[in-house]
Amino acid sequence: MPHRSVINSAAYHDGVRVADVPVGDLGDAWNHSDRFIWVGLYEPSEQVLSHVQEAFGLHDLAVEDAHHAHQRPKLEVYDHSMFIVMRTAKLSESTDQRIEFGETHVFMGPRYVITVRHGSMLSHAGVRARCESTPKLLAKGEGFVVHSVMDFIVDQYFPIIDALQSELDELEEHIFSGESQRNVTARIYHLRRDLLAIMQAVSPLIDVSARLTRTNSNLISADARPYFQDIHDHVICIAGLLDGLQQLSQTALDSNLALISVSQNDDTKRLAAWAAILAVPTLIAGLYGMNFEYMPETNWAWGYPVSLGMMILACIVLYKQFRRVDWL
Amino acid sequence: MPHRSVINSAAYHDGVRVADVPVGDLGDAWNHSDRFIWVGLYEPSEQVLSHVQEAFGLHDLAVEDAHHAHQRPKLEVYDHSMFIVMRTAKLSESTDQRIEFGETHVFMGPRYVITVRHGSMLSHAGVRARCESTPKLLAKGEGFVVHSVMDFIVDQYFPIIDALQSELDELEEHIFSGESQRNVTARIYHLRRDLLAIMQAVSPLIDVSARLTRTNSNLISADARPYFQDIHDHVICIAGLLDGLQQLSQTALDSNLALISVSQNDDTKRLAAWAAILAVPTLIAGLYGMNFEYMPETNWAWGYPVSLGMMILACIVLYKQFRRVDWL
Amino acid sequence: MPHRSVINSAAYHDGVRVADVPVGDLGDAWNHSDRFIWVGLYEPSEQVLSHVQEAFGLHDLAVEDAHHAHQRPKLEVYDHSMFIVMRTAKLSESTDQRIEFGETHVFMGPRYVITVRHGSMLSHAGVRARCESTPKLLAKGEGFVVHSVMDFIVDQYFPIIDALQSELDELEEHIFSGESQRNVTARIYHLRRDLLAIMQAVSPLIDVSARLTRTNSNLISADARPYFQDIHDHVICIAGLLDGLQQLSQTALDSNLALISVSQNDDTKRLAAWAAILAVPTLIAGLYGMNFEYMPETNWAWGYPVSLGMMILACIVLYKQFRRVDWL
Amino acid sequence: MPHRSVINSAAYHDGVRVADVPVGDLGDAWNHSDRFIWVGLYEPSEQVLSHVQEAFGLHDLAVEDAHHAHQRPKLEVYDHSMFIVMRTAKLSESTDQRIEFGETHVFMGPRYVITVRHGSMLSHAGVRARCESTPKLLAKGEGFVVHSVMDFIVDQYFPIIDALQSELDELEEHIFSGESQRNVTARIYHLRRDLLAIMQAVSPLIDVSARLTRTNSNLISADARPYFQDIHDHVICIAGLLDGLQQLSQTALDSNLALISVSQNDDTKRLAAWAAILAVPTLIAGLYGMNFEYMPETNWAWGYPVSLGMMILACIVLYKQFRRVDWL
Amino acid sequence: MPHRSVINSAAYHDGVRVADVPVGDLGDAWNHSDRFIWVGLYEPSEQVLSHVQEAFGLHDLAVEDAHHAHQRPKLEVYDHSMFIVMRTAKLSESTDQRIEFGETHVFMGPRYVITVRHGSMLSHAGVRARCESTPKLLAKGEGFVVHSVMDFIVDQYFPIIDALQSELDELEEHIFSGESQRNVTARIYHLRRDLLAIMQAVSPLIDVSARLTRTNSNLISADARPYFQDIHDHVICIAGLLDGLQQLSQTALDSNLALISVSQNDDTKRLAAWAAILAVPTLIAGLYGMNFEYMPETNWAWGYPVSLGMMILACIVLYKQFRRVDWL
Repeated sequence: MPHRSVINSAAYHDGVRVADVPVGDLGDAWNHSDRFIWVGLYEPSEQVLSHVQEAFGLHDLAVEDAHHAHQRPKLEVYDHSMFIVMRTAKLSESTDQRIEFGETHVFMGPRYVITVRHGSMLSHAGVRARCESTPKLLAKGEGFVVHSVMDFIVDQYFPIIDALQSELDELEEHIFSGESQRNVTARIYHLRRDLLAIMQAVSPLIDVSARLTRTNSNLISADARPYFQDIHDHVICIAGLLDGLQQLSQTALDSNLALISVSQNDDTKRLAAWAAILAVPTLIAGLYGMNFEYMPETNWAWGYPVSLGMMILACIVLYKQFRRVDWL
Repeated sequence: MPHRSVINSAAYHDGVRVADVPVGDLGDAWNHSDRFIWVGLYEPSEQVLSHVQEAFGLHDLAVEDAHHAHQRPKLEVYDHSMFIVMRTAKLSESTDQRIEFGETHVFMGPRYVITVRHGSMLSHAGVRARCESTPKLLAKGEGFVVHSVMDFIVDQYFPIIDALQSELDELEEHIFSGESQRNVTARIYHLRRDLLAIMQAVSPLIDVSARLTRTNSNLISADARPYFQDIHDHVICIAGLLDGLQQLSQTALDSNLALISVSQNDDTKRLAAWAAILAVPTLIAGLYGMNFEYMPETNWAWGYPVSLGMMILACIVLYKQFRRVDWL
Repeated sequence: MPHRSVINSAAYHDGVRVADVPVGDLGDAWNHSDRFIWVGLYEPSEQVLSHVQEAFGLHDLAVEDAHHAHQRPKLEVYDHSMFIVMRTAKLSESTDQRIEFGETHVFMGPRYVITVRHGSMLSHAGVRARCESTPKLLAKGEGFVVHSVMDFIVDQYFPIIDALQSELDELEEHIFSGESQRNVTARIYHLRRDLLAIMQAVSPLIDVSARLTRTNSNLISADARPYFQDIHDHVICIAGLLDGLQQLSQTALDSNLALISVSQNDDTKRLAAWAAILAVPTLIAGLYGMNFEYMPETNWAWGYPVSLGMMILACIVLYKQFRRVDWL
Repeated sequence: MPHRSVINSAAYHDGVRVADVPVGDLGDAWNHSDRFIWVGLYEPSEQVLSHVQEAFGLHDLAVEDAHHAHQRPKLEVYDHSMFIVMRTAKLSESTDQRIEFGETHVFMGPRYVITVRHGSMLSHAGVRARCESTPKLLAKGEGFVVHSVMDFIVDQYFPIIDALQSELDELEEHIFSGESQRNVTARIYHLRRDLLAIMQAVSPLIDVSARLTRTNSNLISADARPYFQDIHDHVICIAGLLDGLQQLSQTALDSNLALISVSQNDDTKRLAAWAAILAVPTLIAGLYGMNFEYMPETNWAWGYPVSLGMMILACIVLYKQFRRVDWL
Repeated sequence: MPHRSVINSAAYHDGVRVADVPVGDLGDAWNHSDRFIWVGLYEPSEQVLSHVQEAFGLHDLAVEDAHHAHQRPKLEVYDHSMFIVMRTAKLSESTDQRIEFGETHVFMGPRYVITVRHGSMLSHAGVRARCESTPKLLAKGEGFVVHSVMDFIVDQYFPIIDALQSELDELEEHIFSGESQRNVTARIYHLRRDLLAIMQAVSPLIDVSARLTRTNSNLISADARPYFQDIHDHVICIAGLLDGLQQLSQTALDSNLALISVSQNDDTKRLAAWAAILAVPTLIAGLYGMNFEYMPETNWAWGYPVSLGMMILACIVLYKQFRRVDWL
């Protein structure tokens, strides 16, 4: 359904939206005017993509990448255009707090930006609305739009990292309170798997944003560079936080293992203590179960209560002793 | 058998196969025409290799490398030719999912490409067929052919990585369900061994493909560079996935160790609980086995059933208690 | 409350404070004189910041950063100004020795320095007082002030590192004396978390101070460079100490795990020894509890005391034996 | 004994050995002819070394290094000469497969090569013989000789790595079959110690061979560079294999630890099962050892065999149960 | 006491000591002659340092550093002088083999060298004596003296590394013989702490010596560079040895943990075996302690000795069985 895959396709003049442009007319609209074109696609069909490719003369390889998702974030610089791949992420709304990844591909050239969205990412409608609300900035053209899209995507990583940080804080508490160790181990594992997945989505952006900052291409004007630098700083910051969480979660895993062993040790001691407490009266009982003819105690009227008393006394003494050395 | 070692040896003109060339005539065919020659060898004998070396003036060291397999992937750039070594990999068809490695060596110079295949790799027949089906592209010559071969080889790593990813997913489930820990450990070990082997095959390609992308050699035309960049991106992507799997499998190994300890702990507790449950009635029985003359209970008609009842009661109380604290 | 957010705002001439300048007059004071302006803000309101921005023509992005704290340390170099973000740290005064982080942002341009302080950091009043006490140095202008602020901030990391070093020394003792292992593990974890947090605050300063040392900007005069080099050396030194503590704390964690296992082993042995000591007299008692008619010992007058003696003897022998092999 | 320390000292013309040159005449032979001199020394005395130094004007520091072994592999480039230190290795012939290290130092200048051998390395006689058998190559002079020596030394690492690989393969089997864990741990440790020692011998050669490949010195002619590149590839390959073995042996160590814990777990379960099987009949026996007067079973003629039967039955039931849950 | 803090202060001409120069006259002595001045200080007072600073015009920051010890090794290059900080180390003479660190700071400029020594390091008297014994070399001036001091300091690391290597060898033996595991863990920990401390003292010297080797400063003449290269090689070598020891000690720590678990396993098995051996006769005794009226064995004259025999037999059989499976 080519209709749905084109979310938005509009021409702008001086930062103001002047017309919607059907996909079929994109080439004309771009060639025969000085209007700026911004097309937003969502999982486009091959047909739609080939229309767009023709209109703006996009590179075969980039279009192929844009069709199939599952690209690694990257920046391709061609003679008169750029192609940017970014991975998007959001917390799934189901309760078990997993992360859903999507992709956004951006083609950028003189007077045009095409964004291609894949997967469960939030729509970019907010980005377009915000851009359109500041015509003065939007009038700066393609560099500004690309910056807005990147900024939007990168900013969505912060709540995810907060969520993972909270998860680790919670795990920390469980680890040191000694609860449900099997479960804690599994949760640390899954936390680390998530951290790794996000790291793989974010770390290539360090290079992408750095190259956008220092690129000589006239697609990005000099005064746009501090803005890309700002994105670069955010990406570096996210990567730093992820790295910290990875190291800390490793320490959590190690600590968890240590505390499992401590628990085991405590249980072994408790087992030993109770075994000893039961063994002593059993021994005494065995003693008076011997069948010697000449056992003075057995004929003594107080023999039975006294032996019971000895057993109880032994148990109490042992119990106190074990409490004292913290085995019970 | 020199016959079998030459899989294919053909001359092309404008991207169209015009003639098969016997190995002995390669030198003439290449020198006295402007045709492009593409030779495909499979574990060639020294004799065949020396024919080919003579024909195209290949470097001694490269030919020696091409004869003996077990090379590390690399790119050698000589004055008028290049020599590329790549390692190929495929899943063995036997059930225990091991990886079989092979090698493909490529000699490339003006108007010729020679591929030398070693080991159990799939034949390149598919590559040649696909190239011949697009004469326009094939007409671009040696750079295009080398790209096609590399692309074919690199793409074969993706299904292997998928298989290893599945293996890890499966292991994950086993680890956290607590099954057959001995087996799980061995499988993680073998997974990591496979990851390492593939990493050693893939990681040198990062450098090889990067150098092919930015090489100044006129063997690779400027418009071929984006295609080698594409291969570079794929290799980087594979290396990233492998790195992720390596880190995650390490965490799996650590988690496995932690859960083995948890299991041990659980078993120790269970052992302790049952020992206690059995020890108490044993103690009571010992008690009434004592031979005191004045033990009122022993003469009491209900003594025996009451003592039995006490034993059963003690067992039930202990059992419930242990269930409550989750030791049983 | 804009009044409180401006801690200090003064003009200097030849290193001597000549006037206090209200925030509203900063622009005039700076434009229409050759006086040097130094403004100190503490968690400023947007209004105050926009006054200041207008007065000195600060970059939008930098001002936005200065308003929201939680920046990563960085250095932004604009055409005629610089923006520096640093994280500050101090030991919290509560007893459990946690670290509180704050932030200091510095805007610097020709004849002006603006410092913006966030969080629980000590005030910079000391820095200003010390600068004002050396008019000759202060007359050197903005580079000298920035150096003083940075030096002040960086020097505050040293007592923290000393505190963490002491914590590790203390932990070391606990680990090898075998006390309260659960607690030790938690403390190592928290130590490592603190180390990580400080490392994330300090490590970006390596790059910041290095760039300040070799910058070509005429904001920093050539003879100020050794001073920034000095800060750079301090940062490198702090990073080195942190790295050492991180490695050593990992070893401490590993050693802790090993010693937990040793403890467990010792307890298992002790358990085994006591079980054996009690099992032998129990067996002997069982022996003489057998109901055979022809058991010569049972009729022997010394049977009972001799069997008791045998039991005691067996216990003593076993006890000594276990002491000898160090199980008890 | 100066005689033995000079293994060989010969002059070559056009790749053909034309004369043996006594150490004392080396200076004259080299200065007053265009012959190429190749001297082979073995743990030379200071006297011999000073003769040689004088003859060719070698640098003091290099000669000092050549006298004392225990150098790290390196390449020193002086104005008109080079000094190369390499570590040699071979498997000791005693059965416990340890590695013996030696050293070879090479002085190289216009028309001379001096090799100094230390330690238990195989003699270079084979290298000289092979060089002399190809006069055409030997005529290329000093670069070719140095290449031959390096090639010979580097190639000797391959069988060692094969041996270590076999050792790891064998260990792998032991680990996963669960045999003699104490021994396996020690063998992994020693394997890792060997890997480290070889890595320290090989890794500096990466830099040495790379510098020889791209050196501008006219001591190494342009057409010799691919040969040094070949050595560089071999060294990189060895380093890669060593790195793989190091990582895999770490995983083996981790797996070993996990499997030790699994074994422990299995033994604990087995212990628990047998304890339970013995505890039940003991309890029953205790029951009928009670001295109640009114115990109907004790007067029943079948009491004894029935109670025995119950014991046996209980044991069998428990045994089967434990087999079912895989504790036995 | 300024007198003691000046260890030596002399003027040299042509490599020969011509006069002792009081600290107060250093400026004159240096300015009004072409003599070379070498001053040796030990933990100098501020007063002495300021005399020296004035005399040679030393940089404020360097002098401040020289007064306070606890600097990280570094090289500061000023316009006409250099400042080098090195950490010195020696084995403490007390028996528990700890390392004592000190510091040596060197100021170097045209015709002067000032060494400042802090802490328990051996005096440099030996260096001065050795230099004075080779006037020809000493005549080369400041570069030669600095080289001699550095060489002296760097060479003192070798015996320390030998001592640590021996410590690890000894630990290795303890680990694999299974002795006193608590102690071994503590010793590995302390070994690693020492390795870290030395690494922090040595690793900055890699950069310092490399910069001295390739410096353009005319303070170090071209023919002095091979000597600094030699120091660089030694430092690299020490760093390599330290790195090896660090890796190996980590493996030792891991192996230690594995062997602790193996020991635990062995003890558990032994415990289980003895428990089983005692449980069987206890069961038999319990059996014949039952009070059934019709137990044929109890009336049988041989009942008692036969039952004793059965018990002994059971113990022997079990013992042998456990020996066979290596549990005892």
